[in-house]
Amino acid sequence: MPAAGHFPEQLDVVGLGNAIVDVVADADDALLAELDLVKGAMTLIDAERSEALYARMGQGIEQSGGSCANSMAALAALGASAGYVGRVKQDQLGAIFAHDIRATGVAFLNTPVADGPPTARCLVFVTPDAQRTMQTYLGACVMLDEEDVDEALVARAKVTYLEGYLWDRDGAKAACLKAARIAQANNRKLALTLSDSFCVGRWRSEFRDLVKSRVDILFANESEITSLYETEDFDEAMEAVRREVGLAVLTRGPSGSVVVAGDQSHPIEPVPPAQVLDTTGAGDLYAAGFLYGYTHDLSLAASGRLGSACASAVIEQYGARVHKPLRALIAGAQS
Amino acid sequence: MPAAGHFPEQLDVVGLGNAIVDVVADADDALLAELDLVKGAMTLIDAERSEALYARMGQGIEQSGGSCANSMAALAALGASAGYVGRVKQDQLGAIFAHDIRATGVAFLNTPVADGPPTARCLVFVTPDAQRTMQTYLGACVMLDEEDVDEALVARAKVTYLEGYLWDRDGAKAACLKAARIAQANNRKLALTLSDSFCVGRWRSEFRDLVKSRVDILFANESEITSLYETEDFDEAMEAVRREVGLAVLTRGPSGSVVVAGDQSHPIEPVPPAQVLDTTGAGDLYAAGFLYGYTHDLSLAASGRLGSACASAVIEQYGARVHKPLRALIAGAQS
Repeated sequence: MPAAGHFPEQLDVVGLGNAIVDVVADADDALLAELDLVKGAMTLIDAERSEALYARMGQGIEQSGGSCANSMAALAALGASAGYVGRVKQDQLGAIFAHDIRATGVAFLNTPVADGPPTARCLVFVTPDAQRTMQTYLGACVMLDEEDVDEALVARAKVTYLEGYLWDRDGAKAACLKAARIAQANNRKLALTLSDSFCVGRWRSEFRDLVKSRVDILFANESEITSLYETEDFDEAMEAVRREVGLAVLTRGPSGSVVVAGDQSHPIEPVPPAQVLDTTGAGDLYAAGFLYGYTHDLSLAASGRLGSACASAVIEQYGARVHKPLRALIAGAQS
Repeated sequence: MPAAGHFPEQLDVVGLGNAIVDVVADADDALLAELDLVKGAMTLIDAERSEALYARMGQGIEQSGGSCANSMAALAALGASAGYVGRVKQDQLGAIFAHDIRATGVAFLNTPVADGPPTARCLVFVTPDAQRTMQTYLGACVMLDEEDVDEALVARAKVTYLEGYLWDRDGAKAACLKAARIAQANNRKLALTLSDSFCVGRWRSEFRDLVKSRVDILFANESEITSLYETEDFDEAMEAVRREVGLAVLTRGPSGSVVVAGDQSHPIEPVPPAQVLDTTGAGDLYAAGFLYGYTHDLSLAASGRLGSACASAVIEQYGARVHKPLRALIAGAQS
């Protein structure tokens, strides 16, 4: 494990998130209905429910996950310098998480916790329509607090990227707010992803305040941004966010995406994947591609295209950590 | 966990093997050379070497593995009734292994061990040529012994299938010999896979004796069968095995396979995969397809074709547990 302080003088992005190992398995709609799962959503569950659901799941694949961690791993794969703040336990899944994120080159300084609940796991049910339904047992993530945020790490990053899911725990939210203060004090940019429409429902007013007062770059998909502004109309939500944040990156699945910057809108064509196998991580990879462009002086449109290409790469495969070399996508996005 | 005794009155196949979770990651030939790994082989390593190699590996995917367990999971996916004998520890990887094999419907009765080394892991380095190089830390597998072999489970199975890798530990070998005795006493068939050419090198004379005196069905690839008979000529090895065992199933990778039964030889065309991504599990899946046919009254040629189709399915994907529905392959192999 790298000692604290062993990271570059200058980082492109540092992210804070729930450090999770995904358990990915195929499922059919009948099983989702029988288990009473909300399709497409991320639902928080306790240890007992996690065991019960796991017992009903088919044979799976385990892979490091966590929305923000997926983005940081992809940023590193693209060639950016990235850091990550999150909590795992000293157990086998925690060792896997820490290994994987460091193997991509991300600076991950937090020491695994010796006691308390096990490393978080997310049961990902992938249906034949490639939708993913996520059931998350947060485990050791609930131990994340302000002390986990290394001031130097955040101070050196051009962008600090917060995962909306962290609002579900007070300590984690405090960690986010501390990181936001450090970023502001160092004249850095603050980015937020809204994570999930149900998460927006739980924390709408706090997210609204944060977006207006602190956030420089907001990431949201269609259901998240319409939930934030309590409208069913995407265009209405887009105009609302335009007035409140300097840069909003709004994804719409197979319909593409739009980068909203002041009075400009940059519509981005989707990149059709060779096959649509599992949409887990599509938003995470889009954010990674966009942030790579943003921190490497690509135009907003090129950054959006790179986001789109990265999202396409992840949905062609199982799981949210991409196997194929992402760097090869950069040139195409710039032309 | 199913209570002991909760399995069908009649089983098609029960297998004994090293119960392993695979850690699969991409690697290039330069890394293999630097780490001094024997490409394409399975090498046994200790805990320290496992940690050192893991630290050099890229981000991975964890998936249940174990040669024989892969075959039993595939047999269950084909619709056969299968049982499995193997050892895991009561840890997170052990829970994953037990969950996955039971989720496919395989009867797995062994209680995870509370103490001793952790559940086995195999570091699988997949090179761009789709070859897999395996480094196995046996961990809890070394606890497997005769007491783990449930007499009723073996007695009820048409075929008992032994993994050659088990010869590397005395207790596991004793478990195999106990299972062989039970199979013989109940007039059941005994199958053996030679597992790996280096494994054959370690146990050649014992394997030769076993093949001649006890085995009804032998599975081997080209390098294993030529190693067994200490010849460089495949045809010579084929004629040697023809004289010593009733049924030999010999695979030759992309050149197809041949089923040798007394004075008959059934050459089997290979089934070209849509893509060759990772050859891990090709032999395991071939054995599963063949044993499905053998226990369901398919002809030897049709059984071989099903083996070939199953092998093709697994090399199109990462890892040795197949995602796509194997049952769909049965009809094609019969025509």
